[in-house]
Amino acid sequence: MQPSRRTPGHGGNLTWAATLAGCSPFDILDFSASINPLGPPPSAIAAIQSSLNDLRHYPDPGYIHLKQTLAQLHDLSPDWILPGNGSAELLTWASRELADLNATHLLTPAFGDYLRALKAFNANIIPCPLPLTDKDDRSIGSTEIGLDRALSDSLLPTPHSPLSTLLPIHPSTHPLPTGLLLNNPHNPTGKLFPRQSLLPLLEQYALVVIDEAFMDFLPEDEQQSLIDRVTEFPNLVILRSLTKFYSFPGLRFGYAIAHPDRLQRWQQWRDPWSVNTLAAAAAEAVVKDVAFQQKTLNWLPPARNQLYAGLAALPGLSPLPGAANYLLVHFRGSTIELQKTLLQRHKILIRDCNSFPELGDRYFRVAVRTESENQRLLDALVEVPPDVNALSDAS
Amino acid sequence: MQPSRRTPGHGGNLTWAATLAGCSPFDILDFSASINPLGPPPSAIAAIQSSLNDLRHYPDPGYIHLKQTLAQLHDLSPDWILPGNGSAELLTWASRELADLNATHLLTPAFGDYLRALKAFNANIIPCPLPLTDKDDRSIGSTEIGLDRALSDSLLPTPHSPLSTLLPIHPSTHPLPTGLLLNNPHNPTGKLFPRQSLLPLLEQYALVVIDEAFMDFLPEDEQQSLIDRVTEFPNLVILRSLTKFYSFPGLRFGYAIAHPDRLQRWQQWRDPWSVNTLAAAAAEAVVKDVAFQQKTLNWLPPARNQLYAGLAALPGLSPLPGAANYLLVHFRGSTIELQKTLLQRHKILIRDCNSFPELGDRYFRVAVRTESENQRLLDALVEVPPDVNALSDAS
Repeated sequence: MQPSRRTPGHGGNLTWAATLAGCSPFDILDFSASINPLGPPPSAIAAIQSSLNDLRHYPDPGYIHLKQTLAQLHDLSPDWILPGNGSAELLTWASRELADLNATHLLTPAFGDYLRALKAFNANIIPCPLPLTDKDDRSIGSTEIGLDRALSDSLLPTPHSPLSTLLPIHPSTHPLPTGLLLNNPHNPTGKLFPRQSLLPLLEQYALVVIDEAFMDFLPEDEQQSLIDRVTEFPNLVILRSLTKFYSFPGLRFGYAIAHPDRLQRWQQWRDPWSVNTLAAAAAEAVVKDVAFQQKTLNWLPPARNQLYAGLAALPGLSPLPGAANYLLVHFRGSTIELQKTLLQRHKILIRDCNSFPELGDRYFRVAVRTESENQRLLDALVEVPPDVNALSDAS
Repeated sequence: MQPSRRTPGHGGNLTWAATLAGCSPFDILDFSASINPLGPPPSAIAAIQSSLNDLRHYPDPGYIHLKQTLAQLHDLSPDWILPGNGSAELLTWASRELADLNATHLLTPAFGDYLRALKAFNANIIPCPLPLTDKDDRSIGSTEIGLDRALSDSLLPTPHSPLSTLLPIHPSTHPLPTGLLLNNPHNPTGKLFPRQSLLPLLEQYALVVIDEAFMDFLPEDEQQSLIDRVTEFPNLVILRSLTKFYSFPGLRFGYAIAHPDRLQRWQQWRDPWSVNTLAAAAAEAVVKDVAFQQKTLNWLPPARNQLYAGLAALPGLSPLPGAANYLLVHFRGSTIELQKTLLQRHKILIRDCNSFPELGDRYFRVAVRTESENQRLLDALVEVPPDVNALSDAS
């Protein structure tokens, strides 16, 4: 049975979901957008409230104080930081630079907005399939000689993960400058690439853009960020987001960390007031909110374990281990049918993977939410009736 | 005497001004940014407050409801509207399309961000000087044969203003596609171009981008908008802003009105969630706030007359008549010195014109504010002492 309408290309489209569920968007339990369920922190809301009087003024186009605050987090000088209207805005400008190169290697399945941004500037995209494995021994990319399970150990920060073996053309042997765009942790798989697997790439690629949008969900001693190497490598760009961890995607806020010359160029390309005053105020407040950070880091591991174990125990479902606040799940039935049933019967929205051609209808992604919300999802999955061609197929 | 430091390129840089004035940014009386002093309206703040709970969700990437609301204002279908993170964001994408043409004609003096956006895509810019006249018979562009006072009647909507005579190459005779970028009312002069003077240009240019950021400050029957012609001309783009009239430049909100194919292209170029949730909510609220609109339209004409008359009565100052909420003023002394003195002695910030090479140190721009605030400026100007090489030169 075909779905009656196209699903949105991205998680969190509650307008669409609410229409299908026949309820208000506020009544949807949203597992599709990978947003921290504990936020936004009161510190963000307080900062917004106290900045409402500033709306009558333009933001400081230099974002001086904001840049100082962010720079201190990473022990950098402020000119290595460029705040943006969400990291998606900064991805646009990173992609413009990638498009100037001969080709851009893109790990797939890739976050849909990467394709949007690269195509916006007619980049030459070379997909690099990332092998996916699950307990049913299904893998994607396994037909590629030499790539099979190449990254199967990437979830743990092992010293010598063979990430570079995934790349179709070894860049150092390639005569033309090539770029690389990836996220770490990877979205949608949740795989975490160890720093050591990324460092050699900095020598080989003309430009390496690493989207660390979900890195802050890892405890500091488990993070695999390359931020501390950015001053050594002018060809390295790190993108960070605050909106996932601090739960304000509606406010829009991200930042880039890269060589000042590059960031100055981007600043001339985009308009001078791209970050709104309330987002700037909230950003400055939340990065100092240690209590909220600790609460989140305490919540995630057990909640993720609970969700993983619950999903793994269900017939037909095979979650992949994930390092971030979401899990990719292989499903023997039709995800589009499952999504529809969960919406209509339980007002629960999961992220289908139809926007990832490598995944299609046999995968879905779910955010880790609070343990009681996770349990609601697990209970709903148990109740899905056989007639949706879903779990029953696998039992 | 040279200024001790560079002034900011744009109005409203209160961080810089407060440092020079030795006070908090909140204590500056800001005449440099052309923002309605009556706002933001309570309807905007209420809409923001009631949307704070939505920050945990991504904005609807289709902005369906918002587009419907804006489309209704202009009696258009929603696909003719694209909301943006301030009209400056949309100017970026308009400029990308202008840059694809052989050349772009730009009326000068031009709003500084036009140059930023056009240069971002390496546009071939051909400046078209707009003659400025004042009671001292100083004019800019008067050396250009045939341009002298060509637009001297442009402040009134006369049927046949010879705007097209300003353009250096008559586009219909030019073999290569050419674009045109201008604002109406013009910034910084305040000149208003009649619709009739613009309509022939739509037949002659490959792409006409009209920034109507200040058009809503005119009563409806005096507006010279081309929005109602947009469905006839696929080469016409109108940019509108809500942040000047409704006083929330810190929130960022503008929109483009153009052919749906063009707007879809722009939407693929930029990220999907460019308008933050709070700006979207405020925009929907304020366009229905008839009471605030009427209050603003009642305030502006007498306040502008008062400010104009007060400035014209001062020796050495010659304001140009303006149709919007700001006045360009010719000054016989040094504006940079005057600006500094007003800041240091009165905590008043005026907009110097050093970012407009055609104007330089002999012009400044002031926003129209409330009558009591305008009077504070006029009183301060009277008190400026002779030793700043300013008003005294002209007395």
